[in-house]
Amino acid sequence: MRRFRLIAEYDGRRFCGWQFQPDARSVQGEIEAALRSVCGAEVRVVGAGRTDAGVHATGQSAHFDLDTRLGPLELRKALNAVLPQDLALLDLRCAPSDFHARHDALGKEYVYRILNRPVASPERRRTTWHLRSRLDLDAMREASELLLGEHDFAAFRGAHGGAPPDEITRRSLDRFEWTREADEVQLLASGRSFLRYMVRNLVGTLVEVGLGRRPAADVKQVLESRDRSRGGATAPAQGLCLRRVLYAEESL
Amino acid sequence: MRRFRLIAEYDGRRFCGWQFQPDARSVQGEIEAALRSVCGAEVRVVGAGRTDAGVHATGQSAHFDLDTRLGPLELRKALNAVLPQDLALLDLRCAPSDFHARHDALGKEYVYRILNRPVASPERRRTTWHLRSRLDLDAMREASELLLGEHDFAAFRGAHGGAPPDEITRRSLDRFEWTREADEVQLLASGRSFLRYMVRNLVGTLVEVGLGRRPAADVKQVLESRDRSRGGATAPAQGLCLRRVLYAEESL
Repeated sequence: MRRFRLIAEYDGRRFCGWQFQPDARSVQGEIEAALRSVCGAEVRVVGAGRTDAGVHATGQSAHFDLDTRLGPLELRKALNAVLPQDLALLDLRCAPSDFHARHDALGKEYVYRILNRPVASPERRRTTWHLRSRLDLDAMREASELLLGEHDFAAFRGAHGGAPPDEITRRSLDRFEWTREADEVQLLASGRSFLRYMVRNLVGTLVEVGLGRRPAADVKQVLESRDRSRGGATAPAQGLCLRRVLYAEESL
Repeated sequence: MRRFRLIAEYDGRRFCGWQFQPDARSVQGEIEAALRSVCGAEVRVVGAGRTDAGVHATGQSAHFDLDTRLGPLELRKALNAVLPQDLALLDLRCAPSDFHARHDALGKEYVYRILNRPVASPERRRTTWHLRSRLDLDAMREASELLLGEHDFAAFRGAHGGAPPDEITRRSLDRFEWTREADEVQLLASGRSFLRYMVRNLVGTLVEVGLGRRPAADVKQVLESRDRSRGGATAPAQGLCLRRVLYAEESL
Protein backbone atom coordinates (compact mmCIF):
# COMPACT_ATOMS: atom_id res chain seq x y z
CA MET A 1 0.00 0.00 0.00
CA ARG A 2 1.37 3.38 -0.96
CA ARG A 3 0.21 6.85 -0.06
CA PHE A 4 -0.32 9.33 -2.87
CA ARG A 5 -0.86 13.07 -2.78
CA LEU A 6 -2.81 14.85 -5.50
CA ILE A 7 -3.46 18.42 -6.56
CA ALA A 8 -6.79 18.98 -8.29
CA GLU A 9 -8.33 21.74 -10.35
CA TYR A 10 -12.09 21.90 -10.78
CA ASP A 11 -14.85 24.05 -12.10
CA GLY A 12 -17.18 24.02 -9.09
CA ARG A 13 -20.41 24.83 -10.84
CA ARG A 14 -21.73 21.35 -11.33
CA PHE A 15 -20.45 19.91 -8.05
CA CYS A 16 -22.27 19.80 -4.71
CA GLY A 17 -18.85 20.59 -3.24
CA TRP A 18 -15.74 18.62 -2.41
CA GLN A 19 -17.25 16.21 0.06
CA PHE A 20 -18.84 12.91 -0.92
CA GLN A 21 -22.62 12.78 -0.79
CA PRO A 22 -24.46 9.65 -1.80
CA ASP A 23 -27.00 11.36 -4.07
CA ALA A 24 -25.04 14.27 -5.45
CA ARG A 25 -22.07 14.88 -7.69
CA SER A 26 -19.06 15.66 -5.48
CA VAL A 27 -15.39 16.16 -6.38
CA GLN A 28 -14.32 13.52 -3.88
CA GLY A 29 -16.90 11.11 -5.27
CA GLU A 30 -15.72 11.65 -8.85
CA ILE A 31 -12.08 11.03 -7.95
CA GLU A 32 -13.03 7.90 -5.99
CA ALA A 33 -15.08 6.70 -8.97
CA ALA A 34 -12.09 7.27 -11.26
CA LEU A 35 -9.87 5.24 -8.93
CA ARG A 36 -12.47 2.48 -8.93
CA SER A 37 -12.60 2.52 -12.70
CA VAL A 38 -8.82 2.56 -13.21
CA CYS A 39 -7.69 0.30 -10.34
CA GLY A 40 -10.82 -1.59 -9.38
CA ALA A 41 -10.24 -0.49 -5.80
CA GLU A 42 -12.49 1.16 -3.25
CA VAL A 43 -10.32 4.06 -2.17
CA ARG A 44 -11.13 6.82 0.28
CA VAL A 45 -9.74 10.20 -0.80
CA VAL A 46 -9.05 12.68 2.02
CA GLY A 47 -9.12 16.35 1.03
CA ALA A 48 -7.26 19.23 2.68
CA GLY A 49 -10.61 20.90 3.24
CA ARG A 50 -14.13 20.97 1.96
CA THR A 51 -15.05 23.43 -0.70
CA ASP A 52 -18.74 24.25 -0.88
CA ALA A 53 -21.13 23.82 -3.77
CA GLY A 54 -20.15 26.03 -6.70
CA VAL A 55 -16.72 26.96 -5.33
CA HIS A 56 -13.81 26.40 -7.72
CA ALA A 57 -10.29 25.18 -7.06
CA THR A 58 -7.05 25.41 -8.96
CA GLY A 59 -5.02 23.83 -6.17
CA GLN A 60 -7.09 21.57 -3.93
CA SER A 61 -4.93 18.97 -2.20
CA ALA A 62 -5.82 15.44 -1.07
CA HIS A 63 -4.27 12.08 -0.24
CA PHE A 64 -5.24 8.43 -0.61
CA ASP A 65 -3.74 4.96 -0.17
CA LEU A 66 -3.56 2.50 -3.02
CA ASP A 67 -1.91 -0.78 -3.80
CA THR A 68 -0.86 -0.43 -7.42
CA ARG A 69 1.99 -1.20 -9.75
CA LEU A 70 1.37 2.00 -11.66
CA GLY A 71 3.79 4.86 -11.13
CA PRO A 72 2.33 8.25 -10.13
CA LEU A 73 2.66 9.67 -13.64
CA GLU A 74 0.93 6.72 -15.29
CA LEU A 75 -1.74 6.75 -12.62
CA ARG A 76 -2.35 10.47 -13.07
CA LYS A 77 -2.74 10.03 -16.83
CA ALA A 78 -5.10 7.08 -16.40
CA LEU A 79 -7.23 8.98 -13.88
CA ASN A 80 -7.35 12.14 -15.99
CA ALA A 81 -8.46 10.05 -18.95
CA VAL A 82 -11.60 8.95 -17.09
CA LEU A 83 -12.31 12.05 -14.98
CA PRO A 84 -15.02 14.41 -16.27
CA GLN A 85 -13.97 17.57 -18.12
CA ASP A 86 -14.65 19.85 -15.17
CA LEU A 87 -12.13 18.07 -12.92
CA ALA A 88 -8.43 17.34 -13.50
CA LEU A 89 -5.47 16.17 -11.46
CA LEU A 90 -2.67 18.68 -12.02
CA ASP A 91 -0.21 16.66 -10.00
CA LEU A 92 0.02 13.25 -8.40
CA ARG A 93 3.02 11.96 -6.49
CA CYS A 94 4.05 9.54 -3.81
CA ALA A 95 3.90 10.93 -0.29
CA PRO A 96 5.30 9.75 3.05
CA SER A 97 2.99 7.16 4.59
CA ASP A 98 2.13 9.55 7.42
CA PHE A 99 1.33 12.53 5.21
CA HIS A 100 -2.19 13.82 5.85
CA ALA A 101 -3.68 16.36 3.45
CA ARG A 102 -5.82 18.02 6.12
CA HIS A 103 -3.81 17.65 9.34
CA ASP A 104 -0.51 18.65 7.76
CA ALA A 105 -1.87 21.70 5.95
CA LEU A 106 -0.16 24.83 7.22
CA GLY A 107 -2.36 27.21 5.35
CA LYS A 108 -4.76 27.85 2.51
CA GLU A 109 -4.94 30.54 -0.11
CA TYR A 110 -8.23 31.61 -1.61
CA VAL A 111 -8.92 34.10 -4.36
CA TYR A 112 -12.25 35.89 -4.70
CA ARG A 113 -12.92 37.63 -8.02
CA ILE A 114 -15.36 40.50 -8.50
CA LEU A 115 -16.22 41.88 -11.93
CA ASN A 116 -16.64 45.56 -11.15
CA ARG A 117 -18.09 47.33 -14.16
CA PRO A 118 -21.53 48.35 -15.39
CA VAL A 119 -21.97 45.43 -17.81
CA ALA A 120 -21.88 41.70 -17.09
CA SER A 121 -19.22 39.54 -18.74
CA PRO A 122 -20.25 36.50 -20.79
CA GLU A 123 -16.74 35.10 -20.47
CA ARG A 124 -16.29 35.62 -16.74
CA ARG A 125 -19.81 35.02 -15.48
CA ARG A 126 -18.79 31.62 -14.13
CA THR A 127 -15.81 32.85 -12.15
CA THR A 128 -16.73 36.29 -10.85
CA TRP A 129 -19.34 38.10 -8.79
CA HIS A 130 -20.70 40.93 -10.88
CA LEU A 131 -21.06 44.27 -9.08
CA ARG A 132 -22.06 47.27 -11.17
CA SER A 133 -21.17 50.11 -8.78
CA ARG A 134 -17.54 51.00 -8.40
CA LEU A 135 -16.06 49.64 -5.18
CA ASP A 136 -14.07 51.94 -2.91
CA LEU A 137 -10.95 49.85 -2.43
CA ASP A 138 -9.37 52.27 0.03
CA ALA A 139 -12.31 51.81 2.39
CA MET A 140 -12.24 48.04 1.90
CA ARG A 141 -8.51 47.93 2.66
CA GLU A 142 -8.99 50.03 5.79
CA ALA A 143 -11.69 47.62 7.00
CA SER A 144 -9.62 44.58 6.04
CA GLU A 145 -6.75 45.73 8.28
CA LEU A 146 -9.09 45.36 11.24
CA LEU A 147 -9.62 41.68 10.45
CA LEU A 148 -6.00 40.58 10.18
CA GLY A 149 -4.47 38.38 12.86
CA GLU A 150 -6.16 36.06 15.34
CA HIS A 151 -9.77 36.69 16.26
CA ASP A 152 -12.97 34.90 17.05
CA PHE A 153 -14.64 34.90 13.63
CA ALA A 154 -18.03 33.60 14.85
CA ALA A 155 -19.73 36.60 13.22
CA PHE A 156 -18.56 35.32 9.83
CA ARG A 157 -19.34 31.62 10.11
CA GLY A 158 -21.99 29.84 8.08
CA ALA A 159 -25.50 30.78 9.11
CA HIS A 160 -27.27 27.91 7.36
CA GLY A 161 -27.22 25.47 10.28
CA GLY A 162 -24.61 22.79 10.25
CA ALA A 163 -22.22 24.78 12.43
CA PRO A 164 -22.12 22.99 15.81
CA PRO A 165 -22.88 25.40 18.69
CA ASP A 166 -19.63 24.48 20.46
CA GLU A 167 -17.53 25.01 17.31
CA ILE A 168 -14.21 26.68 17.96
CA THR A 169 -14.45 29.82 15.90
CA ARG A 170 -11.04 31.34 16.62
CA ARG A 171 -9.02 31.66 13.44
CA SER A 172 -6.02 33.59 12.22
CA LEU A 173 -6.32 35.63 9.06
CA ASP A 174 -2.84 36.18 7.62
CA ARG A 175 -3.57 38.01 4.38
CA PHE A 176 -6.70 39.75 3.19
CA GLU A 177 -5.60 41.89 0.28
CA TRP A 178 -7.63 43.67 -2.38
CA THR A 179 -6.27 44.60 -5.78
CA ARG A 180 -7.86 46.04 -8.88
CA GLU A 181 -6.73 45.19 -12.38
CA ALA A 182 -8.71 46.73 -15.22
CA ASP A 183 -12.38 45.92 -14.56
CA GLU A 184 -11.74 43.24 -11.95
CA VAL A 185 -11.27 43.44 -8.19
CA GLN A 186 -9.51 40.47 -6.59
CA LEU A 187 -9.16 39.41 -3.01
CA LEU A 188 -6.32 37.21 -1.84
CA ALA A 189 -7.13 35.60 1.52
CA SER A 190 -4.81 33.29 3.38
CA GLY A 191 -4.77 31.71 6.79
CA ARG A 192 -4.16 28.41 8.51
CA SER A 193 -7.79 27.40 8.18
CA PHE A 194 -11.15 29.01 7.64
CA LEU A 195 -14.64 28.49 9.03
CA ARG A 196 -17.24 27.30 6.62
CA TYR A 197 -18.50 30.24 4.45
CA MET A 198 -16.02 32.53 6.26
CA VAL A 199 -14.31 33.92 3.15
CA ARG A 200 -17.61 34.53 1.38
CA ASN A 201 -19.17 36.13 4.48
CA LEU A 202 -16.16 38.40 4.86
CA VAL A 203 -16.37 39.34 1.19
CA GLY A 204 -20.10 40.07 1.47
CA THR A 205 -19.46 42.38 4.42
CA LEU A 206 -16.45 44.11 2.91
CA VAL A 207 -18.36 44.76 -0.30
CA GLU A 208 -20.93 46.69 1.74
CA VAL A 209 -18.05 48.85 2.94
CA GLY A 210 -16.85 49.25 -0.64
CA LEU A 211 -20.31 50.35 -1.75
CA GLY A 212 -20.52 52.93 1.04
CA ARG A 213 -23.36 51.15 2.83
CA ARG A 214 -21.33 50.54 5.95
CA PRO A 215 -18.39 52.50 7.42
CA ALA A 216 -15.04 50.67 7.49
CA ALA A 217 -14.89 50.81 11.29
CA ASP A 218 -18.19 48.93 11.49
CA VAL A 219 -16.38 45.74 10.54
CA LYS A 220 -14.59 45.72 13.88
CA GLN A 221 -17.92 45.95 15.70
CA VAL A 222 -19.34 43.09 13.67
CA LEU A 223 -16.26 40.99 14.45
CA GLU A 224 -16.47 41.74 18.16
CA SER A 225 -20.21 41.05 18.30
CA ARG A 226 -19.58 37.42 17.30
CA ASP A 227 -23.11 37.65 15.91
CA ARG A 228 -23.60 36.31 12.38
CA SER A 229 -26.68 38.46 11.86
CA ARG A 230 -24.58 41.63 12.07
CA GLY A 231 -22.43 40.83 9.03
CA GLY A 232 -23.24 41.21 5.36
CA ALA A 233 -24.73 38.63 3.01
CA THR A 234 -22.73 35.63 1.84
CA ALA A 235 -20.98 36.46 -1.43
CA PRO A 236 -21.87 34.08 -4.29
CA ALA A 237 -19.91 30.84 -4.62
CA GLN A 238 -18.78 31.28 -8.22
CA GLY A 239 -16.34 34.08 -7.34
CA LEU A 240 -14.38 31.90 -4.91
CA CYS A 241 -11.44 29.68 -5.81
CA LEU A 242 -9.18 27.63 -3.54
CA ARG A 243 -5.83 28.45 -5.07
CA ARG A 244 -3.48 26.35 -3.01
CA VAL A 245 -2.84 24.48 0.19
CA LEU A 246 0.50 25.03 1.89
CA TYR A 247 2.57 22.35 3.60
CA ALA A 248 5.97 22.27 5.28
CA GLU A 249 8.62 20.83 2.97
CA GLU A 250 9.30 17.97 5.34
CA SER A 251 5.72 16.69 5.41
CA LEU A 252 5.62 16.14 1.64
CA MET B 1 -33.33 57.78 -37.28
CA ARG B 2 -30.06 57.68 -35.40
CA ARG B 3 -27.00 55.52 -35.97
CA PHE B 4 -25.60 53.65 -32.98
CA ARG B 5 -22.30 51.85 -32.54
CA LEU B 6 -21.98 48.94 -30.11
CA ILE B 7 -19.14 46.88 -28.64
CA ALA B 8 -20.10 43.32 -27.74
CA GLU B 9 -18.56 40.55 -25.67
CA TYR B 10 -19.70 36.98 -26.19
CA ASP B 11 -18.90 33.44 -25.25
CA GLY B 12 -18.87 31.86 -28.70
CA ARG B 13 -19.58 28.28 -27.70
CA ARG B 14 -23.30 28.24 -28.19
CA PHE B 15 -23.38 30.50 -31.25
CA CYS B 16 -23.20 29.46 -34.90
CA GLY B 17 -21.05 32.59 -35.26
CA TRP B 18 -21.71 36.30 -35.63
CA GLN B 19 -23.75 36.19 -38.80
CA PHE B 20 -27.50 35.73 -38.86
CA GLN B 21 -28.75 32.33 -39.96
CA PRO B 22 -32.44 31.55 -40.05
CA ASP B 23 -32.22 28.21 -38.22
CA ALA B 24 -29.30 28.74 -35.86
CA ARG B 25 -28.40 30.89 -32.88
CA SER B 26 -26.21 33.75 -34.09
CA VAL B 27 -24.85 36.76 -32.23
CA GLN B 28 -26.31 39.13 -34.79
CA GLY B 29 -29.66 37.37 -34.54
CA GLU B 30 -29.73 37.64 -30.74
CA ILE B 31 -28.94 41.37 -30.80
CA GLU B 32 -31.60 41.95 -33.45
CA ALA B 33 -34.09 39.96 -31.37
CA ALA B 34 -33.23 42.08 -28.32
CA LEU B 35 -33.82 45.27 -30.33
CA ARG B 36 -37.14 43.86 -31.50
CA SER B 37 -38.10 43.07 -27.93
CA VAL B 38 -37.03 46.44 -26.48
CA CYS B 39 -38.03 48.78 -29.32
CA GLY B 40 -40.49 46.76 -31.35
CA ALA B 41 -38.40 47.53 -34.42
CA GLU B 42 -36.94 45.34 -37.13
CA VAL B 43 -33.33 46.46 -37.09
CA ARG B 44 -30.42 45.18 -39.14
CA VAL B 45 -27.17 45.06 -37.16
CA VAL B 46 -23.97 45.31 -39.24
CA GLY B 47 -20.87 43.77 -37.67
CA ALA B 48 -17.25 44.74 -38.26
CA GLY B 49 -16.59 41.17 -39.31
CA ARG B 50 -17.93 37.67 -38.99
CA THR B 51 -16.63 35.50 -36.23
CA ASP B 52 -17.07 31.79 -36.87
CA ALA B 53 -18.93 29.22 -34.79
CA GLY B 54 -17.33 28.84 -31.38
CA VAL B 55 -15.08 31.89 -31.64
CA HIS B 56 -15.30 34.34 -28.73
CA ALA B 57 -15.18 38.12 -28.68
CA THR B 58 -14.46 40.68 -26.02
CA GLY B 59 -14.57 43.58 -28.46
CA GLN B 60 -16.71 42.90 -31.52
CA SER B 61 -18.01 46.11 -33.06
CA ALA B 62 -21.22 46.74 -34.97
CA HIS B 63 -23.62 49.51 -35.99
CA PHE B 64 -27.36 49.85 -36.53
CA ASP B 65 -29.96 52.55 -37.19
CA LEU B 66 -32.89 53.07 -34.87
CA ASP B 67 -35.59 55.63 -34.30
CA THR B 68 -35.86 55.82 -30.52
CA ARG B 69 -36.29 58.33 -27.73
CA LEU B 70 -34.01 56.26 -25.47
CA GLY B 71 -30.50 57.56 -24.86
CA PRO B 72 -27.60 55.19 -25.58
CA LEU B 73 -27.09 54.37 -21.90
CA GLU B 74 -30.75 53.55 -21.31
CA LEU B 75 -30.87 51.56 -24.51
CA ARG B 76 -27.75 49.59 -23.57
CA LYS B 77 -29.22 48.72 -20.18
CA ALA B 78 -32.53 47.69 -21.70
CA LEU B 79 -30.83 45.49 -24.29
CA ASN B 80 -28.50 43.87 -21.77
CA ALA B 81 -31.49 43.08 -19.60
CA VAL B 82 -33.01 40.93 -22.35
CA LEU B 83 -29.86 39.53 -23.99
CA PRO B 84 -28.85 35.98 -23.03
CA GLN B 85 -26.08 35.49 -20.45
CA ASP B 86 -23.46 34.60 -23.02
CA LEU B 87 -23.76 37.92 -24.84
CA ALA B 88 -23.43 41.47 -23.48
CA LEU B 89 -23.07 44.96 -24.89
CA LEU B 90 -20.07 46.55 -23.21
CA ASP B 91 -20.64 49.88 -24.85
CA LEU B 92 -23.30 51.59 -26.93
CA ARG B 93 -23.07 55.13 -28.21
CA CYS B 94 -24.29 57.43 -30.94
CA ALA B 95 -22.18 57.43 -34.08
CA PRO B 96 -22.00 59.71 -37.13
CA SER B 97 -24.70 58.78 -39.61
CA ASP B 98 -22.05 57.66 -42.12
CA PHE B 99 -20.11 55.45 -39.67
CA HIS B 100 -19.87 51.88 -40.93
CA ALA B 101 -18.58 49.17 -38.59
CA ARG B 102 -17.03 47.10 -41.37
CA HIS B 103 -15.96 49.65 -43.98
CA ASP B 104 -14.42 52.03 -41.48
CA ALA B 105 -12.50 49.37 -39.56
CA LEU B 106 -8.76 50.07 -39.78
CA GLY B 107 -7.73 46.84 -38.14
CA LYS B 108 -8.62 43.92 -35.93
CA GLU B 109 -6.86 42.35 -33.00
CA TYR B 110 -7.27 38.69 -32.23
CA VAL B 111 -5.89 36.68 -29.33
CA TYR B 112 -5.37 32.92 -29.54
CA ARG B 113 -4.82 31.10 -26.23
CA ILE B 114 -3.06 27.76 -25.89
CA LEU B 115 -2.93 25.87 -22.60
CA ASN B 116 0.52 24.32 -22.78
CA ARG B 117 0.92 21.82 -19.95
CA PRO B 118 0.48 18.08 -19.50
CA VAL B 119 -2.93 18.28 -17.82
CA ALA B 120 -6.15 19.82 -19.14
CA SER B 121 -7.72 22.74 -17.28
CA PRO B 122 -11.35 22.51 -16.14
CA GLU B 123 -11.48 26.29 -15.79
CA ARG B 124 -9.90 27.19 -19.13
CA ARG B 125 -11.21 24.40 -21.33
CA ARG B 126 -13.69 26.78 -22.95
CA THR B 127 -11.16 29.43 -23.87
CA THR B 128 -7.95 27.58 -24.75
CA TRP B 129 -6.57 24.91 -27.04
CA HIS B 130 -4.91 22.28 -24.89
CA LEU B 131 -1.50 21.07 -26.09
CA ARG B 132 0.41 18.73 -23.82
CA SER B 133 3.91 18.95 -25.35
CA ARG B 134 5.92 22.04 -24.65
CA LEU B 135 5.96 24.46 -27.57
CA ASP B 136 9.26 25.87 -28.80
CA LEU B 137 8.42 29.55 -28.85
CA ASP B 138 11.74 30.58 -30.38
CA ALA B 139 11.03 28.47 -33.44
CA MET B 140 7.47 29.78 -33.63
CA ARG B 141 8.70 33.37 -33.43
CA GLU B 142 11.26 32.74 -36.15
CA ALA B 143 8.54 31.34 -38.41
CA SER B 144 6.14 34.16 -37.53
CA GLU B 145 8.64 36.77 -38.72
CA LEU B 146 8.33 35.28 -42.19
CA LEU B 147 4.60 35.97 -42.23
CA LEU B 148 4.63 39.64 -41.26
CA GLY B 149 3.78 42.26 -43.83
CA GLU B 150 1.75 42.01 -47.02
CA HIS B 151 1.45 38.63 -48.71
CA ASP B 152 -0.98 36.46 -50.58
CA PHE B 153 -2.34 34.31 -47.75
CA ALA B 154 -4.27 31.88 -49.99
CA ALA B 155 -2.46 28.97 -48.32
CA PHE B 156 -4.14 29.91 -45.04
CA ARG B 157 -7.69 30.55 -46.17
CA GLY B 158 -10.66 28.40 -45.22
CA ALA B 159 -10.62 25.02 -46.90
CA HIS B 160 -14.25 24.09 -46.16
CA GLY B 161 -15.73 25.51 -49.35
CA GLY B 162 -17.38 28.87 -49.22
CA ALA B 163 -14.26 30.72 -50.33
CA PRO B 164 -14.99 32.03 -53.83
CA PRO B 165 -12.29 31.01 -56.33
CA ASP B 166 -11.69 34.61 -57.36
CA GLU B 167 -11.37 35.82 -53.76
CA ILE B 168 -8.66 38.40 -53.24
CA THR B 169 -6.38 36.71 -50.76
CA ARG B 170 -3.77 39.42 -50.31
CA ARG B 171 -3.66 40.61 -46.72
CA SER B 172 -1.28 42.46 -44.47
CA LEU B 173 -0.28 40.90 -41.14
CA ASP B 174 0.92 43.65 -38.82
CA ARG B 175 1.54 41.74 -35.59
CA PHE B 176 1.87 38.03 -34.94
CA GLU B 177 3.44 37.78 -31.50
CA TRP B 178 3.78 34.81 -29.18
CA THR B 179 4.18 35.12 -25.42
CA ARG B 180 4.24 32.61 -22.62
CA GLU B 181 2.91 33.32 -19.16
CA ALA B 182 2.98 30.46 -16.68
CA ASP B 183 1.28 27.48 -18.39
CA GLU B 184 -0.30 29.49 -21.19
CA VAL B 185 0.97 30.52 -24.60
CA GLN B 186 -0.80 33.47 -26.21
CA LEU B 187 -0.77 34.80 -29.72
CA LEU B 188 -1.62 38.40 -30.52
CA ALA B 189 -2.49 38.82 -34.20
CA SER B 190 -3.43 42.10 -35.79
CA GLY B 191 -3.99 43.29 -39.32
CA ARG B 192 -6.37 45.36 -41.38
CA SER B 193 -8.51 42.33 -42.17
CA PHE B 194 -8.21 38.57 -42.24
CA LEU B 195 -9.39 35.79 -44.51
CA ARG B 196 -11.89 33.38 -43.09
CA TYR B 197 -10.13 30.81 -40.82
CA MET B 198 -6.83 32.58 -41.50
CA VAL B 199 -5.80 33.12 -37.88
CA ARG B 200 -6.71 29.56 -36.91
CA ASN B 201 -4.94 28.12 -39.96
CA LEU B 202 -1.83 30.14 -39.16
CA VAL B 203 -1.96 28.95 -35.55
CA GLY B 204 -2.36 25.33 -36.62
CA THR B 205 0.69 25.61 -38.87
CA LEU B 206 2.82 27.49 -36.36
CA VAL B 207 2.02 24.94 -33.68
CA GLU B 208 3.52 22.25 -35.90
CA VAL B 209 6.68 24.34 -35.95
CA GLY B 210 6.53 24.68 -32.15
CA LEU B 211 6.18 20.90 -31.78
CA GLY B 212 9.21 20.29 -34.03
CA ARG B 213 7.14 18.64 -36.76
CA ARG B 214 7.99 21.29 -39.33
CA PRO B 215 11.05 23.55 -39.63
CA ALA B 216 10.43 27.27 -39.19
CA ALA B 217 11.58 28.03 -42.74
CA ASP B 218 8.89 25.70 -44.09
CA VAL B 219 6.27 28.33 -43.30
CA LYS B 220 7.66 30.56 -46.03
CA GLN B 221 7.30 27.75 -48.56
CA VAL B 222 3.73 27.11 -47.50
CA LEU B 223 2.95 30.81 -47.84
CA GLU B 224 4.51 31.01 -51.28
CA SER B 225 2.77 27.84 -52.50
CA ARG B 226 -0.64 29.56 -52.00
CA ASP B 227 -1.85 25.98 -51.57
CA ARG B 228 -4.12 25.40 -48.56
CA SER B 229 -3.24 21.69 -48.47
CA ARG B 230 0.39 22.52 -47.58
CA GLY B 231 -0.45 24.24 -44.27
CA GLY B 232 -1.31 22.72 -40.91
CA ALA B 233 -4.73 21.85 -39.54
CA THR B 234 -7.16 24.55 -38.45
CA ALA B 235 -6.70 25.30 -34.74
CA PRO B 236 -9.88 24.82 -32.68
CA ALA B 237 -12.34 27.71 -32.44
CA GLN B 238 -12.50 27.96 -28.65
CA GLY B 239 -8.95 29.35 -28.37
CA LEU B 240 -9.72 32.36 -30.56
CA CYS B 241 -11.09 35.69 -29.37
CA LEU B 242 -11.70 38.89 -31.32
CA ARG B 243 -10.31 41.41 -28.89
CA ARG B 244 -10.99 44.68 -30.63
CA VAL B 245 -11.69 46.49 -33.83
CA LEU B 246 -9.75 49.66 -34.50
CA TYR B 247 -11.13 52.83 -36.08
CA ALA B 248 -9.75 56.25 -36.87
CA GLU B 249 -10.84 58.82 -34.28
CA GLU B 250 -12.65 60.86 -36.92
CA SER B 251 -14.90 58.03 -38.08
CA LEU B 252 -16.40 57.50 -34.61
